Amino acid sequence: MLITFEGIEGCGKSTQIELLYTYLTQKGRVVVKTREPGGTPFGEALRKVSLTKEMTVFPLAELLTFMAIRAQHVEEVIMPALEKRQIVLCDRFVDATYAYQGYGRGIDLGIIETLNRLVTKGIRPNLTILLDCTATVGLKRKSGHHRSLDRFEKEALSFHRKIRNAYTKLAKEDPERFFVVDANGDVEAIHRIIREKVDFLLNDHGIR
Amino acid sequence: MLITFEGIEGCGKSTQIELLYTYLTQKGRVVVKTREPGGTPFGEALRKVSLTKEMTVFPLAELLTFMAIRAQHVEEVIMPALEKRQIVLCDRFVDATYAYQGYGRGIDLGIIETLNRLVTKGIRPNLTILLDCTATVGLKRKSGHHRSLDRFEKEALSFHRKIRNAYTKLAKEDPERFFVVDANGDVEAIHRIIREKVDFLLNDHGIR
Repeated sequence: MLITFEGIEGCGKSTQIELLYTYLTQKGRVVVKTREPGGTPFGEALRKVSLTKEMTVFPLAELLTFMAIRAQHVEEVIMPALEKRQIVLCDRFVDATYAYQGYGRGIDLGIIETLNRLVTKGIRPNLTILLDCTATVGLKRKSGHHRSLDRFEKEALSFHRKIRNAYTKLAKEDPERFFVVDANGDVEAIHRIIREKVDFLLNDHGIR
Repeated sequence: MLITFEGIEGCGKSTQIELLYTYLTQKGRVVVKTREPGGTPFGEALRKVSLTKEMTVFPLAELLTFMAIRAQHVEEVIMPALEKRQIVLCDRFVDATYAYQGYGRGIDLGIIETLNRLVTKGIRPNLTILLDCTATVGLKRKSGHHRSLDRFEKEALSFHRKIRNAYTKLAKEDPERFFVVDANGDVEAIHRIIREKVDFLLNDHGIR
């Protein structure tokens, strides 16, 4: 089972993945916690280069780098875990590319779809949790972290608003797969909502 | 004018590019000397990661990384230079992808063609110089260099033979664009052959 987490910078994905990971492993399940861009030694090295603040990266080059990272990630981590029937929790996946490189950078959505199909080899998330918060709230959280902002985080507020709207649109287009959670509130309350949804899904799939 | 250099490891591309660059600049031409994978700060950083000997890189991830590098290279370096009517000498370009990732790694040639078309934005080399030598001669030259071999150089002899055959095939399929030079011989003699060909081409294009 593949569960992906999506949302703008500072929406709380990492925190919620961490809480869900602990919850599921304590219940005895084998869970793989991973992320994009990244997830493999090759992907993490490319991520580091791609997010460097001072780097000039054209939109098409950015798209293809993230697709290279995804190709490696699917073959090295996600597919093997799914074949062993493990639960994969992934911080960003296919939808992030539509949101950031498509709606954000203006790359043709058809190109993204073709590439996503090529690199995912037919793998689709069983559930996508969209942590929805305003760009103002998200960026405020990020700027509170004690490290400098990366190439995406330092984009203007208008860019992050565009990404938020893109995610909302994507969720509306695929309501069966997306689960939208209001991420402005309390961390523990959000975790309980996610936990319930995931428990329901696992039962539904006959996974104990 | 875009002139690309192709050939297996150790065929002498860098040496010949250097000699041609000196020859053309001494004649007063503005020449840009560049390479793939690489050619831009982003591309060179991705190159470094991609060629790391110890790195596990799946064929599709390798292909997409090199395409990301090419997308950046075309937009940041090659197109601006061609628009200013400069001469671009490029160490490896589109053909290397067919040879290495296509014939070498076994990726579908149609996928490579689609991606090449996407990232080059219609730019085609005016001339491609294929420095043809046997894999044994090429690898012997490389192993004489005083540095450790990268992820490609350390491939088996059979891999490099496959690449050489692929290049020969590509040259036969596009004889108008390819100029095949026997690269087993003397460096200066090879340079004179290349120089003559390039002078002829420049005259033919009315470039003095």
